[in-house]
Amino acid sequence: VMGLSLKYWGLIQKGWRYGVREPQKIIHCFKVGMALCLVSLFYYLRPLYEGVGGNAMWAVLTVIVALEYTVGATICKCLNRAVATLMAGGLGIGVHWVASQFGEMYEPLILQGSVFVLAAAATFPRFLPSVKAHFDHGALIFIFTFVLVSVSGYRERELFTLAHHRLSTVAIGISICVVTSIFFCPVWAGNELHNLVQDNMEKLADSLDGYVAEYIGYDANEASNNTLVGYRSVIDSMAAEESLVNCARWEPAHGGFNFRHPWKEYLELGASLRSCGYCIDALSGIVGDTKAPDFLKERFSTFCVKLSSNSSAVLRELVVVIRTLVKSPKIDLRLDEMCNAVEEIQTALKALPNQKNGSNETKPQESSDACPIVIPFDGKGETDVCPVVIPFVAIVQLVTLSSLLIEIAARTEKIVKSVNRLAEKATSSELKV
Amino acid sequence: VMGLSLKYWGLIQKGWRYGVREPQKIIHCFKVGMALCLVSLFYYLRPLYEGVGGNAMWAVLTVIVALEYTVGATICKCLNRAVATLMAGGLGIGVHWVASQFGEMYEPLILQGSVFVLAAAATFPRFLPSVKAHFDHGALIFIFTFVLVSVSGYRERELFTLAHHRLSTVAIGISICVVTSIFFCPVWAGNELHNLVQDNMEKLADSLDGYVAEYIGYDANEASNNTLVGYRSVIDSMAAEESLVNCARWEPAHGGFNFRHPWKEYLELGASLRSCGYCIDALSGIVGDTKAPDFLKERFSTFCVKLSSNSSAVLRELVVVIRTLVKSPKIDLRLDEMCNAVEEIQTALKALPNQKNGSNETKPQESSDACPIVIPFDGKGETDVCPVVIPFVAIVQLVTLSSLLIEIAARTEKIVKSVNRLAEKATSSELKV
Repeated sequence: VMGLSLKYWGLIQKGWRYGVREPQKIIHCFKVGMALCLVSLFYYLRPLYEGVGGNAMWAVLTVIVALEYTVGATICKCLNRAVATLMAGGLGIGVHWVASQFGEMYEPLILQGSVFVLAAAATFPRFLPSVKAHFDHGALIFIFTFVLVSVSGYRERELFTLAHHRLSTVAIGISICVVTSIFFCPVWAGNELHNLVQDNMEKLADSLDGYVAEYIGYDANEASNNTLVGYRSVIDSMAAEESLVNCARWEPAHGGFNFRHPWKEYLELGASLRSCGYCIDALSGIVGDTKAPDFLKERFSTFCVKLSSNSSAVLRELVVVIRTLVKSPKIDLRLDEMCNAVEEIQTALKALPNQKNGSNETKPQESSDACPIVIPFDGKGETDVCPVVIPFVAIVQLVTLSSLLIEIAARTEKIVKSVNRLAEKATSSELKV
Repeated sequence: VMGLSLKYWGLIQKGWRYGVREPQKIIHCFKVGMALCLVSLFYYLRPLYEGVGGNAMWAVLTVIVALEYTVGATICKCLNRAVATLMAGGLGIGVHWVASQFGEMYEPLILQGSVFVLAAAATFPRFLPSVKAHFDHGALIFIFTFVLVSVSGYRERELFTLAHHRLSTVAIGISICVVTSIFFCPVWAGNELHNLVQDNMEKLADSLDGYVAEYIGYDANEASNNTLVGYRSVIDSMAAEESLVNCARWEPAHGGFNFRHPWKEYLELGASLRSCGYCIDALSGIVGDTKAPDFLKERFSTFCVKLSSNSSAVLRELVVVIRTLVKSPKIDLRLDEMCNAVEEIQTALKALPNQKNGSNETKPQESSDACPIVIPFDGKGETDVCPVVIPFVAIVQLVTLSSLLIEIAARTEKIVKSVNRLAEKATSSELKV
């Protein structure tokens, strides 16, 4: 019992911390409570109750199911519910009329057959991802309303009254949902998406800086481990992004976004952010064990740090672009700096084999048959040239790191393109309106 | 109109192809139709209809909402619905009784207050991912039943009858769901998960082979582009995996899986498969443009192909292990081969600087101050040593490819560990039962 209660205590604490971190979600809970109180007034006020013939529970159910966290999701569900109820109600009455023409004998058969066919037909599209994203709820409500109207019509002769009550209760529920969702502390899916993308960019920049710093060896304090693996949440945010994009497309104009805001572009932007994240993941595997000699590391660290910090500077500048949705003049500058850093690191790679007479004094050399890359040991004057084969393996890591950084820079450029396209489309859509 | 009808025609064709590819989903549609026909019998058979006091629609609603594609999801939803209905029904009756003690005046206030508090309290856990995965539906049903019982009790004095009807209709709906789901062409989430993981492994192996083949330059036919990007669906399959794992844990013993089958291990296995996929993604970026001279590529291709084909052989062997859930004796052999290939490629990397007198005849050498890696041009006898700096850049790609392949091999080893642990736990859980 003690253990169980401790476990629950831990759960409550976790929930509390979560609530403090995201007060918006607590507010949502109160909104649900408020909307339900509103809708349950139907039970208390007699005229309202009589008006819908005791079917007030449909309104309750509508509020419970359709009131979602974001405005977009709520509107999507409400529209689904409204359209599906209308369509299925009409179809149900139609099928019921047709069936009634065939006489008492065949009526149930025809009704059952139509239920079977329509239920199967409406279930199938739910498997298609594009339909599921927007119309899943609609398909369910369609089936339910159809069965309700067409079949229970056989029993209750007041079919139109039933259909009418169902429609009006659903309409009441929907209006309560939409009003609560939009006018009390609204959470816009568009805003959330916007912030998510910005956060993701910052996380990528932090991770990139962090890993290179870890490799170089300075600033490797344990506290930054959290920022180090920030890229992982970027990689895992695909599902959240997709559902937010789907919701945002249903939202009316709000804040800086108008109705025609290019939400679809965010999907592509998210994909390019993730592809950058994959590279950082590969990098994280390679950074693990350092083998390169200090001298070389030091020499290369400047280039690596320069390239990675330039890449992350580009990412951070992009955060500003996304926030304002206006192309920043600085971004081209930063991009140029990044490209310069790429060129520098490539030059450094080319110069790698010449390291032996690089920073130290020039030395007399033996002519050797096998001529591996020769790394002068730190302070020593004369180094023996031939047997030093291991350093090349050490260089492998440096080379890999550099070319992964170059690849990351290339993918950052793609992100820049996505962001620019997004900013352009957003501006042009504003001009149109 | 023409364009619209063409679009719909395309959609229908797409749906048809989808249906042919996955007949199991078509069968599910028919199952839904069948279950609904069964439940709507309540409307036609008078004694059944009277038995639940005209509340047969709750049974319909239960079937529509709770009958999911996989057995596990159906059971999860049904259990959620049953427990939530019971709990909320009991609580609702209790709250109603307490409120009725305070007299006509305060009753609605207390009821409204309890609705507000409970709705808010039951909405909050839905934000926590661990709760959402298993009990999301339960929370909704809890709120709904509570509102229904506690509030409508104020109006209809036959509270117990209402609660009883709701319980029995939900029970009828649930039993129809479970029977249809388990006894007619069941789709087990466990099986689906099992197949998904195997498919993913094969896709990784195909992609890996494909990219190395593309880099080497042979077998680069366009048709294989589909298998090339197979790793992408591996990367994107996290959400599907998680939901399948959540469903599979609710399933009774079936086929080769018993109730205690270590489903959670699949999550870790999936994560290590994805991390391998990230590396392949990084590889795909680097493979793009080939700069290495043919001679070197040829020499290295043997090592790269050997390592990648060994890695993919390990993955393919793991598919067999997963399929049978018995540790294969071959796997250690394959793993050894892979490790050997890793060592070979490392040796080859070490030997890289010695390339100049590698495969060709030994040549007299000038003693040079700067001694870059010298690559003999294909047929030429005498090569001038000093100015050939570009080839080192060419090697950069080879080096990166090799070390990414080594990293992929390391991640493959992690996959092997995950699979072995899974196989072990599966065997031991079988012994326990």
